Amino acid sequence: MKKIKIIVSIALLTFVGLSCKQTSPESTQDIGKSDESIISDPLPSWNEGTTKENIVRFVETVTKEGSPGFVPVKDRIATFDNDGNLWSERPLYFQLAFAIDRVKAMADQHPEWSTKQPFKGVLEDDMAEVLKTGMHGILELVMASHAGMTAEEFDTVVANWLSTAKHPRFNRPYNELIYQPMLELLDYLRANDFQTFIVSGGGIDFMRTWATEAYNIPSYQIVGSSIKTSFEYNDGEAVIRRLPEMDFIDDNAGKPVGIHKHIGKKPIFASGNSDGDLQMLQYADSNQYPSFMLYLHHTDSEREWAYDRDSHIGRLDQGLDEAKVKGWTVIDMKNDWKTIYPFQMNN
Amino acid sequence: MKKIKIIVSIALLTFVGLSCKQTSPESTQDIGKSDESIISDPLPSWNEGTTKENIVRFVETVTKEGSPGFVPVKDRIATFDNDGNLWSERPLYFQLAFAIDRVKAMADQHPEWSTKQPFKGVLEDDMAEVLKTGMHGILELVMASHAGMTAEEFDTVVANWLSTAKHPRFNRPYNELIYQPMLELLDYLRANDFQTFIVSGGGIDFMRTWATEAYNIPSYQIVGSSIKTSFEYNDGEAVIRRLPEMDFIDDNAGKPVGIHKHIGKKPIFASGNSDGDLQMLQYADSNQYPSFMLYLHHTDSEREWAYDRDSHIGRLDQGLDEAKVKGWTVIDMKNDWKTIYPFQMNN
Repeated sequence: MKKIKIIVSIALLTFVGLSCKQTSPESTQDIGKSDESIISDPLPSWNEGTTKENIVRFVETVTKEGSPGFVPVKDRIATFDNDGNLWSERPLYFQLAFAIDRVKAMADQHPEWSTKQPFKGVLEDDMAEVLKTGMHGILELVMASHAGMTAEEFDTVVANWLSTAKHPRFNRPYNELIYQPMLELLDYLRANDFQTFIVSGGGIDFMRTWATEAYNIPSYQIVGSSIKTSFEYNDGEAVIRRLPEMDFIDDNAGKPVGIHKHIGKKPIFASGNSDGDLQMLQYADSNQYPSFMLYLHHTDSEREWAYDRDSHIGRLDQGLDEAKVKGWTVIDMKNDWKTIYPFQMNN
Repeated sequence: MKKIKIIVSIALLTFVGLSCKQTSPESTQDIGKSDESIISDPLPSWNEGTTKENIVRFVETVTKEGSPGFVPVKDRIATFDNDGNLWSERPLYFQLAFAIDRVKAMADQHPEWSTKQPFKGVLEDDMAEVLKTGMHGILELVMASHAGMTAEEFDTVVANWLSTAKHPRFNRPYNELIYQPMLELLDYLRANDFQTFIVSGGGIDFMRTWATEAYNIPSYQIVGSSIKTSFEYNDGEAVIRRLPEMDFIDDNAGKPVGIHKHIGKKPIFASGNSDGDLQMLQYADSNQYPSFMLYLHHTDSEREWAYDRDSHIGRLDQGLDEAKVKGWTVIDMKNDWKTIYPFQMNN
């Protein structure tokens, strides 16, 4: 439990002091997806080069019947991290932005928060004070914003937040900051009979409210961290109640454990962007079938963000070394991606 | 935790003193499935009558676009209990037969078991002595047979057991004792764009080794009880290690919790055979969409077994009352099913 707490701590203690450019790029209203019926290139937002070639070569190898690398359809499991891999994670994990907004929205019902840390710090935008409360305080924020309601109430709260909150740099709903090239990759894999899964350190129920629509991934193919729940039945009313207690942390070594629990098969394709994904990639790398390990390296300080070894959010250090040693494919965001977000597409 | 232990205790303390007929019915080698391409009736092993009519009417209602009862494809979730619902559970839960056989198979490596209960009792077929060790002893048996190995090793052990062990009454591999009418029902629902899930008190990893093939349900649509696991990585070798500690009991109120955790949606179709399924049916019954609750009543003492309110295994008491009050459909096995097992089909 101590190790789990440390992991949560590392993940949560970092949402402060991060620069945040307030630029608003030109945009259209469209949330684009690749339309494979009219585009022969399945990955049109990917520049030609080694990364794209590696992906296509792998997919062609495992889908070619009779070839030594062929993988039966039932074993074509692909797992994707979410934060910083399918959508952005700056200036702070979007789910933490939700938690902060939620605490602010609930403050009227909690007058005691105005004098009690870490809530006082949140309400006064004084993150230094929040952080002084340490791990215990951060967990108090998460539980106050994510627990103590039914599953359906939580879904509504998240949906309402997504429909009103705007990302500070791009001034758009957070769920528009998904990566166009990754949408194409998901589509491409599914068109080749892969089952695509999200395996994220983020909250499983938080993701399920929007990720199904954003990525075309059903709720039962989304794996994430969770709090405990209980079943309540009163006179025909059946609800799932969200409890203020951690159940599972789907990060680091928790990712293979979560994959085993929810999917029950080793992936042949694993995609992540941080050291928190390293064990998932190691797990896929040990598959007896051919497998593909993919890291997204944030190298684009202009269109998105550039960060790796020294970052508090999405740190990619050990993973970068291991990718080099093992010959895993690393996406260079700046050079490999033509477009970052769907709303930047020219339609 | 105490409540969980009591549930396990009730489930596990019952595998003794049950009669076991040693008859071997005539059979063929085929494990049959409905072939919808040549049969216009999607449920050919179901006799005409209210039960079959109710099922068909429900499916037609929720799939008819424009009708008030229409349910979008993404919300067509069907959940099925396994033991006593998709396959038999007599004379004792098949997974417990596995645990007992496994302890016997491992006895050579554990000379201390010959003098230590509950193992001594298992090795001497003296279940009375086993039961004297109570809950603690039963859990010792489960952990000795299910933990302390990698996930892959466990899969192999279960597969080997299934290929050699025979059911004492039917003298066939346990995974041939699946219900032909339920195979047709699963096929029928999937043909109408339902996603079919197993939600069982049985072990998730035990089921995954054979249920995918038996029922055409992928591993990630199988939900069950689990022990804890850990990820181990040594020099390129990545394994999931099975630990001797309970993680989750997917029974009673645990079923809606397991459904929420693994599926993330309320079912519109829930099928079970015991009071352990009652909360799952209540959960489906509270769906805002039209929903269908189905109980299998074991009424066939000749072809299968007849038991309900007083049974230690698969007790159906409260559920039978609630089904009547709420108008849920109850399968009368003796009268509603033409055939029980696939190997009894005339091909």
